[in-house]
Amino acid sequence: RYTFAPRMAKTPKSFIREILKVTERPEIISFAGGLPSPALIDVDGIRRAANTVLEQDGRCALQYSTTEGYLPLRQFIADRYKKRLGLTISPEEILITNGSQQCLDLIGKILIGTGDHVAIERPGYLGAIQAFSQYEPEFHPVPLMEDGPDIVSLNLTCRTHPVRLFYGVPNSQNPSGITYSEKRRKDVADVMKEHGVLFVEDDAYGELNFSGKSLPSMQTFLPGQTIITGSFSKILAPGMRMGWVVAPREIMEQLVVAKQAADLHSNYLSQRIAYEYLLQNDIDGHIRKIRAAYEHQRDVMLRIIKEEFPETVTSTHPRGGMFIWMTLPEGCSSMDVFEQALKENVAVLPGMPFYVDGGGSDTMRLNFSNSTDENIITGMGRLARVIRRMSSS
Amino acid sequence: RYTFAPRMAKTPKSFIREILKVTERPEIISFAGGLPSPALIDVDGIRRAANTVLEQDGRCALQYSTTEGYLPLRQFIADRYKKRLGLTISPEEILITNGSQQCLDLIGKILIGTGDHVAIERPGYLGAIQAFSQYEPEFHPVPLMEDGPDIVSLNLTCRTHPVRLFYGVPNSQNPSGITYSEKRRKDVADVMKEHGVLFVEDDAYGELNFSGKSLPSMQTFLPGQTIITGSFSKILAPGMRMGWVVAPREIMEQLVVAKQAADLHSNYLSQRIAYEYLLQNDIDGHIRKIRAAYEHQRDVMLRIIKEEFPETVTSTHPRGGMFIWMTLPEGCSSMDVFEQALKENVAVLPGMPFYVDGGGSDTMRLNFSNSTDENIITGMGRLARVIRRMSSS
Repeated sequence: RYTFAPRMAKTPKSFIREILKVTERPEIISFAGGLPSPALIDVDGIRRAANTVLEQDGRCALQYSTTEGYLPLRQFIADRYKKRLGLTISPEEILITNGSQQCLDLIGKILIGTGDHVAIERPGYLGAIQAFSQYEPEFHPVPLMEDGPDIVSLNLTCRTHPVRLFYGVPNSQNPSGITYSEKRRKDVADVMKEHGVLFVEDDAYGELNFSGKSLPSMQTFLPGQTIITGSFSKILAPGMRMGWVVAPREIMEQLVVAKQAADLHSNYLSQRIAYEYLLQNDIDGHIRKIRAAYEHQRDVMLRIIKEEFPETVTSTHPRGGMFIWMTLPEGCSSMDVFEQALKENVAVLPGMPFYVDGGGSDTMRLNFSNSTDENIITGMGRLARVIRRMSSS
Repeated sequence: RYTFAPRMAKTPKSFIREILKVTERPEIISFAGGLPSPALIDVDGIRRAANTVLEQDGRCALQYSTTEGYLPLRQFIADRYKKRLGLTISPEEILITNGSQQCLDLIGKILIGTGDHVAIERPGYLGAIQAFSQYEPEFHPVPLMEDGPDIVSLNLTCRTHPVRLFYGVPNSQNPSGITYSEKRRKDVADVMKEHGVLFVEDDAYGELNFSGKSLPSMQTFLPGQTIITGSFSKILAPGMRMGWVVAPREIMEQLVVAKQAADLHSNYLSQRIAYEYLLQNDIDGHIRKIRAAYEHQRDVMLRIIKEEFPETVTSTHPRGGMFIWMTLPEGCSSMDVFEQALKENVAVLPGMPFYVDGGGSDTMRLNFSNSTDENIITGMGRLARVIRRMSSS
């Protein structure tokens, strides 16, 4: 009855959305989602910060503001890049967004014309696939190896197509949990340089590296050709939808035009609260707590996998982030596992939607950040039994 | 050096942004912006609501949430449509957005393919021109008369082009301040029905009709073909970026897909605060206060226009909203007025950017919501002298 723009037919239905609806029942132990641990949100600290802002400067914090975002917050982010990663970034190169998902939408909007070539990791982050799909690119998946993208494949892709950008998550990738090695970062940068391709570095999980030792940003090796996206969702709170994008000035100008057309500016009250929270609290100490908790939860999950799962099941050993990626025994389908596990009140996320070219039917993503030890032990135990049963039949 | 998507070349540079930067100096009396009065933001009420939410359910309010938005808030909005306008709307037909600007982006995204035909009022709201431009439509401006769009022109446009949608602001339009009469609403609906065109009813100012008597929504006459956008920016606070879109279910499904790709969901903390505020406070009483204040400010501005401006200057007499639209004497350019007035520390907004087909160089928009009586009297007095001087020379 209604006619929609052609781009809508090219955007994948959110399989995850549908799955998460099924898994919302309280009796289900879910490893399917991607939520940070609610226990690690500093609610009192955020309430104090909100009170300070609303008491001291509420009338301003509730008014319209600039498209680029609150300057002191952008300065804080710039300073943190210097301290953490040695990057020299000016606040003028930072735009505050509604979570880092909006970065992907804005980047797609300004860079991707219909039919433009976009390289993406295989498996690739579903949120990026969805955001970019709306701009109707031709996707080129580049296999992820243990230490980063397959350089031969990346090179071939860039040689045979005028690739506009390569989107990747070098730190604790979603969905695979893989982190690029330093060597692989340099190799990727070399390919990008040779072919004049932009690298979009999604760094949602960079602060959640359990060792506390950060690997260099792609920008270190690829200045002027790297766009970085960042997020407070995993270190502060996702509900405030606070993210940011870092880009060279000429690209930033276009991002600001697109941001203004999209929603004028990000929630200014939340920007002010986030900044006030960062002033009043020890964010490094808070992040250390999150890292320690998630590292422990990862260890519990990996232990059950080692002890109770068939040896034919392989999984990644993430050095940070929130996800483990599992590959099932030959001939075992993750959709079947999903269905059988659901009968045992356990939810997993089948891996297919992370593949832009089909495939991945033997893979699944397991989230460890949003479960207690007890739930990990119980839920993974049940999952092990389901998979044992299926692979023996 | 960088290559951008073709859509970026078609998006107008924000002339207003540039102008507003010039007018930010504290000594300037500005009628150029579009801010609500900061004095009418209930900062204490919002602070109390924020405390309640963060004390009672902070851990949930700070977590990820659903794309559609907080259900009780959507129910509140639905109930208010029933009460105010007699519309029967289900919460499932409502999506919470980042201000109503994001509605325009999402509507453009799902409905406008490259080269599709879009009708828009002339002059038309700049935010809509910017948002839609990113989807590369062909615009068809329809002249605004004293009581709404020129029906002959609208009919001709719809007869000669397969128009996808007609975007309009029936209540106290931005920039002109014009309100469609009830008769004109019916006429527009008839044209939409005849040609199967969607009407996008931007209702940012519907609550700010000074008489308190609302005219019927376009949806009354055009069910199934009307998309309504709404906003808390003018009645609560713009800094929280809370808006919503109302659409038939089949359209809503696509809007939700686009919203998820754009930023997953709107700021959940602010949704919860807004809802809590609406529970704890008398929003109708608060809106009455805003209406009374703006009506008074409009009257002061109109009085100075009547008493001190040359008779060759014409202006609209808005029954609500925040803007008066002025047309200068023959041969007088609003860019020249802008420049001369700036020398006297007064800022106005030249009307050209509101015309998608050029023209409008003798028009300008004057905002009355964000100035004190004293500033209106002083600033408009100076503006009168500038225009007198220019039209006599």
